[in-house]
Amino acid sequence: MKKQRVSSAVIRRLPRYYRHLSDLHDVGVVRISSSALAGSMGLTASQIRQDLSCFGGFGQQGYGYNVENLRGEIADILGMERGHSAIILGAGNLGRALMENFHFDRSGFALTAAFDIRPELVGRTLSGVPVHHIDTLEGYLQSNRVSVGVLTVPSSAAAAIAERLVKGGVRGLWNFTNTELAVHGPEVVVEDVHFADSLLALSYMITEET
Amino acid sequence: MKKQRVSSAVIRRLPRYYRHLSDLHDVGVVRISSSALAGSMGLTASQIRQDLSCFGGFGQQGYGYNVENLRGEIADILGMERGHSAIILGAGNLGRALMENFHFDRSGFALTAAFDIRPELVGRTLSGVPVHHIDTLEGYLQSNRVSVGVLTVPSSAAAAIAERLVKGGVRGLWNFTNTELAVHGPEVVVEDVHFADSLLALSYMITEET
Repeated sequence: MKKQRVSSAVIRRLPRYYRHLSDLHDVGVVRISSSALAGSMGLTASQIRQDLSCFGGFGQQGYGYNVENLRGEIADILGMERGHSAIILGAGNLGRALMENFHFDRSGFALTAAFDIRPELVGRTLSGVPVHHIDTLEGYLQSNRVSVGVLTVPSSAAAAIAERLVKGGVRGLWNFTNTELAVHGPEVVVEDVHFADSLLALSYMITEET
Repeated sequence: MKKQRVSSAVIRRLPRYYRHLSDLHDVGVVRISSSALAGSMGLTASQIRQDLSCFGGFGQQGYGYNVENLRGEIADILGMERGHSAIILGAGNLGRALMENFHFDRSGFALTAAFDIRPELVGRTLSGVPVHHIDTLEGYLQSNRVSVGVLTVPSSAAAAIAERLVKGGVRGLWNFTNTELAVHGPEVVVEDVHFADSLLALSYMITEET
């Protein structure tokens, strides 16, 4: 399918569509009208039609959407069937929280390794994931195709590690360090997780009501 | 200042404005044109003017924005000066990662306590934060004003803990559990942190380029 240029707002909504359609599928919903889907997501029906039209549109007049098909199409658009792989850089509390509790596989990723420098971690297997010494990163990247590096290192180490990942051919950086990464190469994508932005939005919402 | 009804897209951009203005302020920028601010944020100048006009507008024709003033106004809008407080529910890896590395104070929050059930954690002080037994939550909420509960408990415990927080008068839930919370009361706000949405957006972006 030929894709148009898609706005970042639409890209941000796609995972939400996927999540809602998965929930609907799990409780046995087979088809849904765009207005019902919109209602449950806090959007308008015309916004949903417009979003999905970026990818060719999947609804049928008078029928609505087949939940399982649409979910599959969105999974495909999101690249969930591409066999992406990820490694974790920094097996501290946050890295370990992701290893233990975050289901990379449900997002279509295989989590293949973690890297750290602490002797008490290196060589161990945590939540089924082997922890290697960061000095072996380059060798690992040479022999393994890695799509995404998950940056959970201390902020001070973030820039140097990011550069090593990009040099080693990693195309996506999932950045949990509170640092803006200036990475070079148009083919590299950085996705920042800004906890503070989320807390500040919550702060606004509880402040507004008072 | 009288606020208009503000769209959720604008609310999501406010913390980013705050972050960018703080960075500019830190490197000594005193004033900035809306087009320069827009350029550094990947927005258009007219979008910035429109966003800020929701709150009365702060720019001056031919001058642009005073960085420190605008930062202060946005901090005020975000409720950063209201003395909000937060408690962490669940001092596992993720809870501890937030206690150790996340600067609640930089978002205007005091992190006053954590709650858990594990005997090896209860009674200890982690990163300066006392860990209490979850059974003492109701008493704590009676004697302390708590604005936000940070949910880092296992998913299975999320709904019950959320209900206890809301009953105890907590108005904001910062939800890191992979669970949709059905909380009652229009005065309660839930902010979900969906790691999967972020990873899927990254997956889309690295897939699109290939």
